[in-house]
Amino acid sequence: MKQISGGVCAAKGFRANGVHCGIRKNRSKRDLALIFSEKRAACAAVYTTNLVKGAPLAVTKAHIADGYAQAIVCNSGNANTCNANGPEIAEGMCALAAKQLGIDAADVVVASTGVIGQKMSLEPIGSGIIPLCEGLSAEGGAFAAEGIMTTDTVKKEVAIEFEIGGVVCRMGGIAKGSGMIHPNMATMLVFITTDAGISPALLQKALSGDVKNTFNMLSIDGDTSTNDMVVVMANGCAGNAEIREEGEDFNVFMQALNSVNVALCRMIAGDGEGATKLLECRLTGASDEETAKKIAKSVVCSSLTKAAMFGADANWGRVLCAIGYSGAYTDVGRIDVCFESKKGKISVCESGAGVDFDEALAKQILSEKEIDILVNLNSGEYSACAWGCDLTYDYVKINADYRT
Amino acid sequence: MKQISGGVCAAKGFRANGVHCGIRKNRSKRDLALIFSEKRAACAAVYTTNLVKGAPLAVTKAHIADGYAQAIVCNSGNANTCNANGPEIAEGMCALAAKQLGIDAADVVVASTGVIGQKMSLEPIGSGIIPLCEGLSAEGGAFAAEGIMTTDTVKKEVAIEFEIGGVVCRMGGIAKGSGMIHPNMATMLVFITTDAGISPALLQKALSGDVKNTFNMLSIDGDTSTNDMVVVMANGCAGNAEIREEGEDFNVFMQALNSVNVALCRMIAGDGEGATKLLECRLTGASDEETAKKIAKSVVCSSLTKAAMFGADANWGRVLCAIGYSGAYTDVGRIDVCFESKKGKISVCESGAGVDFDEALAKQILSEKEIDILVNLNSGEYSACAWGCDLTYDYVKINADYRT
Repeated sequence: MKQISGGVCAAKGFRANGVHCGIRKNRSKRDLALIFSEKRAACAAVYTTNLVKGAPLAVTKAHIADGYAQAIVCNSGNANTCNANGPEIAEGMCALAAKQLGIDAADVVVASTGVIGQKMSLEPIGSGIIPLCEGLSAEGGAFAAEGIMTTDTVKKEVAIEFEIGGVVCRMGGIAKGSGMIHPNMATMLVFITTDAGISPALLQKALSGDVKNTFNMLSIDGDTSTNDMVVVMANGCAGNAEIREEGEDFNVFMQALNSVNVALCRMIAGDGEGATKLLECRLTGASDEETAKKIAKSVVCSSLTKAAMFGADANWGRVLCAIGYSGAYTDVGRIDVCFESKKGKISVCESGAGVDFDEALAKQILSEKEIDILVNLNSGEYSACAWGCDLTYDYVKINADYRT
Repeated sequence: MKQISGGVCAAKGFRANGVHCGIRKNRSKRDLALIFSEKRAACAAVYTTNLVKGAPLAVTKAHIADGYAQAIVCNSGNANTCNANGPEIAEGMCALAAKQLGIDAADVVVASTGVIGQKMSLEPIGSGIIPLCEGLSAEGGAFAAEGIMTTDTVKKEVAIEFEIGGVVCRMGGIAKGSGMIHPNMATMLVFITTDAGISPALLQKALSGDVKNTFNMLSIDGDTSTNDMVVVMANGCAGNAEIREEGEDFNVFMQALNSVNVALCRMIAGDGEGATKLLECRLTGASDEETAKKIAKSVVCSSLTKAAMFGADANWGRVLCAIGYSGAYTDVGRIDVCFESKKGKISVCESGAGVDFDEALAKQILSEKEIDILVNLNSGEYSACAWGCDLTYDYVKINADYRT
């Protein structure tokens, strides 16, 4: 499995593009993205569990009910959520893209991201769809990645190459997500393409299984968005024997998907709104999987731990505190905590109590851009990993006046 | 029921004091507090549900197992949590206070607040306990309130007068709490005194019932502390017939307790770490009580809503988003949302969709220090109230380097 370039266009048969159509005022910001597969592709998705759902989610769900799709259209700048005419706009976006691409509107996946509860018009999309479709190319993955960004400061794309039954396959993904990130059985906007052949049912199984260990273990701010979704399209252009049952090929596919998803998770966490640091909580020694996940996630969600990491302050008591209120049970007297980064590793708590440590070294370790919080519960064999970021002045700044 | 002055010394038979004993470096900050009742008092308490618990909690629990106590000793600057010698220190604090006061150590309630996992010594307490006890007075309530403060910027005390069976009774309370506040079946540090006579069993019943509607509906930052407790002492000095069963007298007592607790909740929320605004979510029209509470609390806990309130930005989509992920079910299409303050009231969302509103007026309303977020689910008869604060640069600043 090796990293390659090309994002969502790395896999055979996919083209993409992103343009500025006018939903956002800043003309240099692409606000409309398209991913297109030459062939109808098996398609699977997971969605936010928020009761308040963006209109595009219901439309997408209906369109991929048959397990297939051929294009993904997505705008940024307006979430198309809590709008009276939301479903109409979402259907309209699909119709406009379908007409221009010469495909069935029911094969278009639609997504929106941006401010909730703002009126939305089809007009800018109607004018933007022509250059968007005309400009589709195998080099357009980065434009699509830009087109879905909101408060993201960097575009997020990844691609890998792997083999299924001796056939070279590729998989790539793009993601947007910076605030309102606290997935719960679903996630932010992530679009993944692969030329591997796999049945819609197994594609859905792979995706639903993997998000539990990846996007559902990611939190920026504890706010689960209304518009989150992860969509995977698999068009089979690589030519492998279509994966129709669990087994070795499916396992390789799962590994590839996990590798793409973990890479995107880390990119999203590291680019959390206002974030200066990526936090990874690697938890071991839990008595069961549920406990491992709950506790790892509780640590990366703690505002106090996040603020301490911003200040490079080895205030491990906050890690213990977050473990204690996670809702899962563990024997507090067995917990060990270490902080680790490129600069080294330091033990700060053993068997639930503080140990003397070198504050200067701790400061050095915590001043890095990627911090690992290593927690060993010493109570079993299960482990989990969760991703988050520090809490900074800029998170507050970005969100104090987001609309205007 | 009228507000009076005097805090925890407003009720007959209570004296208090607070001194600087040296746990904190800043010599002008009182760090040791004492509340003393002339008579042994019925005593009830609720504690944090965090698995990681400060050593003082277990000691206090044992000491009031018989339903009575006579003094409360509390230090700030060190939480006495995750220390190998924690229980010894907590017992030691009780013994020192008991000796000086000439009472049984098993009648002393002990509490600590401050940094977790720092070594603690009895030495400063041993030297501070003499002036602390010698200085006890009926005017010392404010000193005790200061003694328990950590990052609090204002001391929090309240007192009221009410009648039980024609007898004038008084109740007063002090609280500390500014960060790590997200109570779950318990709360931050709150000490309440009353001269009303009530049996220990009914006192516990009143307290356990009331915190569900008061301190458990309060959140500053989503972090449930390890050291939270609320303790009430009722010494009977007012001379009312001791309340031994539910009925009219008990109801009056419950009202008095609720009034003190709501006042302290509002003080704590308004003085949340870095906060510039008190947020009160008043939710109506829920189908059941659980739903009302979950949703009201979800709104005041949302980092994004809190940051928008800091920016006086009427971004009501974040309120809808928080309602949607609360975990309780409600029909999103029926939700109305208004913002209200001294400057007026404005409707921003009706039946789950945005309505046109005057942005200038909204800005004016949200620029006040106390903001009410009014949510009507229009789905039933239940209501709830939750308290929180805005999320500001200063929250991050305070917590980025708390220890050093």
